[in-house]
Amino acid sequence: MTSQPGSDRPRPRVVIVGAGFAGLTAARRIARLPVQVTVLDRRNHHIFQPLLYQVATAGLSPGEIAAPIRSILSSHSNVEVLLDEVIDFNLEQKQVITREQIFEYDFLVIASGATHAYFGHDEWEPLAPGLKTIEDALEIRRRVLLAFELAERRKEEQSATNSTTDNNDDGASASPLQFVVIGGGPTGVELAGTLAEIARHALNGEFRNIDPRRSRILLIEGGPRILPAYSDELSRKAEQQLRHLGVEVRTSQMVTGVEPGAVWMGNQRISASVTLWAAGVAASPLGRKLGVAVDRAGRVLVRPDLSIPDYKDVFVIGDLAALHDENGKLLPGVAPVAIQQGDWVAKAIARDLEHQPRRDFHYFDKGSLATIGRAAAVAQIGKFELSGYFAWLAWLFIHILFLIGFRNRLLVMIQWAWSYLTYERGARLITGSDELPGWTETSLQPRKGDDAEPPISSGRRSA
Amino acid sequence: MTSQPGSDRPRPRVVIVGAGFAGLTAARRIARLPVQVTVLDRRNHHIFQPLLYQVATAGLSPGEIAAPIRSILSSHSNVEVLLDEVIDFNLEQKQVITREQIFEYDFLVIASGATHAYFGHDEWEPLAPGLKTIEDALEIRRRVLLAFELAERRKEEQSATNSTTDNNDDGASASPLQFVVIGGGPTGVELAGTLAEIARHALNGEFRNIDPRRSRILLIEGGPRILPAYSDELSRKAEQQLRHLGVEVRTSQMVTGVEPGAVWMGNQRISASVTLWAAGVAASPLGRKLGVAVDRAGRVLVRPDLSIPDYKDVFVIGDLAALHDENGKLLPGVAPVAIQQGDWVAKAIARDLEHQPRRDFHYFDKGSLATIGRAAAVAQIGKFELSGYFAWLAWLFIHILFLIGFRNRLLVMIQWAWSYLTYERGARLITGSDELPGWTETSLQPRKGDDAEPPISSGRRSA
Repeated sequence: MTSQPGSDRPRPRVVIVGAGFAGLTAARRIARLPVQVTVLDRRNHHIFQPLLYQVATAGLSPGEIAAPIRSILSSHSNVEVLLDEVIDFNLEQKQVITREQIFEYDFLVIASGATHAYFGHDEWEPLAPGLKTIEDALEIRRRVLLAFELAERRKEEQSATNSTTDNNDDGASASPLQFVVIGGGPTGVELAGTLAEIARHALNGEFRNIDPRRSRILLIEGGPRILPAYSDELSRKAEQQLRHLGVEVRTSQMVTGVEPGAVWMGNQRISASVTLWAAGVAASPLGRKLGVAVDRAGRVLVRPDLSIPDYKDVFVIGDLAALHDENGKLLPGVAPVAIQQGDWVAKAIARDLEHQPRRDFHYFDKGSLATIGRAAAVAQIGKFELSGYFAWLAWLFIHILFLIGFRNRLLVMIQWAWSYLTYERGARLITGSDELPGWTETSLQPRKGDDAEPPISSGRRSA
Repeated sequence: MTSQPGSDRPRPRVVIVGAGFAGLTAARRIARLPVQVTVLDRRNHHIFQPLLYQVATAGLSPGEIAAPIRSILSSHSNVEVLLDEVIDFNLEQKQVITREQIFEYDFLVIASGATHAYFGHDEWEPLAPGLKTIEDALEIRRRVLLAFELAERRKEEQSATNSTTDNNDDGASASPLQFVVIGGGPTGVELAGTLAEIARHALNGEFRNIDPRRSRILLIEGGPRILPAYSDELSRKAEQQLRHLGVEVRTSQMVTGVEPGAVWMGNQRISASVTLWAAGVAASPLGRKLGVAVDRAGRVLVRPDLSIPDYKDVFVIGDLAALHDENGKLLPGVAPVAIQQGDWVAKAIARDLEHQPRRDFHYFDKGSLATIGRAAAVAQIGKFELSGYFAWLAWLFIHILFLIGFRNRLLVMIQWAWSYLTYERGARLITGSDELPGWTETSLQPRKGDDAEPPISSGRRSA
């Protein structure tokens, strides 16, 4: 029922599933066309993903990097936003099926993104949380901060029960805290670098029984080098900067087991106060509901115009889409690709409404930036490479610039300037667990109600 | 084992339980004495309680009104902070018993505060959350924001299933959202006033199917007037200001039942999309572990020097203490009382160390301030009374001044200025529930895992 602009027939209805970078960009652009737009998301807020690691590491508050979707889109009177979960599609009938109702569409844009992948070991998830949502970030924050609190208290108990031990042995008798980050992509690198900063600087002088600076931070990467999407040279520089910050980097090491308090690599057991997962993503399960081909990660193999085979009116964009560039290289799951695809879909729909032929999507790569930690980053802009302080400044500038909302930009800049000067981290709150007290070592593991079964039930589990 | 300053005997050990206003003030002051201080709290953070309602109503983020206790106290090298829960005392042996260990003390300061009281109806708690912790505030925020989202979606379903109904009836067919706040003290007044501001202004123009301005906000008070601690005149003015903001105030009404979706007052049933509890507090259960007399609310009847009968070295301060002033009036459970008592305990211990006789505590009442909402407040300073805009400015100034940390003061001021000018609320995130989708009306009720039994099991339950 694609109608002519200006006619009194109902406007074409566009349904957009998901309001990440891809879906939100699509919504804003499509809203300019003579259509009715419905945005469906299971969260009420859009997250500025590139800064989510700062929430996990207590540098920022959730409200500073997230904004209500309906607030971002409120100026578009032809856009409605509904909090709902899509569970299936009926492409023949042009219907989107949510838990509560059915939506009819003329055009469908699916941008439901990706989630963590544990390579067939879903039982590792509660033991090694990943970083995708605000809740994930707060759970990581809780575990990291709690690990220090627990160590401080355990040391106090030791000195109380064993009064012959000199209390000034600086924690030599207890094993220091050990944080293990699995996965050497951008998220793993950010997390490891920032954890090092917390342990070396932010907590300095605040504990009486432990020395946070003695904590070890390990970054484990299965491949031969970290940040594999960057050049060899930048990879090497990133590793140098990480080591300088105090992170131990181990490449070509495959994690074969995760259990409470430890990570296994083959026969080697590494004790881990906290384990974080940044090793892989899988596409949203909605991709498999479309009945078209998907790749191993569940990404939908889209046509060059981002629609799916046999259904010209259904687009898949962002992390859920698998598209290869002219050189046969898969486009990466990064914000610029998602934003350009969201933008492109609006153009495709506009051309359809004007009965013009569609064009193919081409990604324009403006460059890549990855932050590592305090004043450390790498940047690749075409042939041009940059690392260290100036790459970090570029990263900071671009990310604050793209953050949604003027107020948020100002607040985040103040936070950043403050913690750069003082090393303080402003959001060091342990929240989320109603029953903090009485926790023992296992409270760094799954929370009450989670499935707490250890993944490896052999006798080699620790304490 | 009270030792002489300067001797090589171990310093007297002071254990402080709880780091609210009373405990934190005590810790800071006592740290100046030649003693060793241990602060025990079940949370890692101190909360600036007067601004907690702003977190509940999406105006501020948790990190802006809370700070890690160990960070606040880090400059005092003779203070250690431990995250632990006190479960009992052995006053004869001078021991504090936590879940994990036993602490010996020479002086004990108990400042574990108060929690919500449901007047013997603890089953109402999951249905009508109160506001004491960060988690409480986020849960209230979740319920309030979710109520609007749910209404928007339900209206969409109605127009989809019943296409004969004109979609422009402006929600007349659906009952508007109704928020019920139980209790007309300062917290209830703040919550009701701010909810009205959200409904009337902050959400304006963001929904397509409902009109948030049509929401009703009811404030129910059992006594004859709201803010009973203030003069009749100020009570009346506060009520006027609330009505002006759009709140319906009902006094002399006792709530007799709370059930999912409704509140009962005798035979009268009021439907309630969200119910909030601000009607009463009970002292921390630790008060009853001391074996001394407590009042009906569980507050410890302390001696004029804030110690407890028979145990001169045990002090109870803040909301857990019941002390009457010269006129026989119970000191209110407010921050100034807690702070002055914390300060006073340090003086008492200092006098003990110097073998000077203790003096009695006297509260110096500098005045009271209660905020009502946007540019509305009441103030009572001795005989001097103030209400409206200038009272609100005074409230704002004093509260931002006393907020802990320069960075936080700056951030909160920016947030405030921004939302005053734009009516925006910066922290409108629905978080905490992993399974938002698929929720129905009951998801505004207790979360999964809570005890969801309705309090009234007769046939009069709705929906």
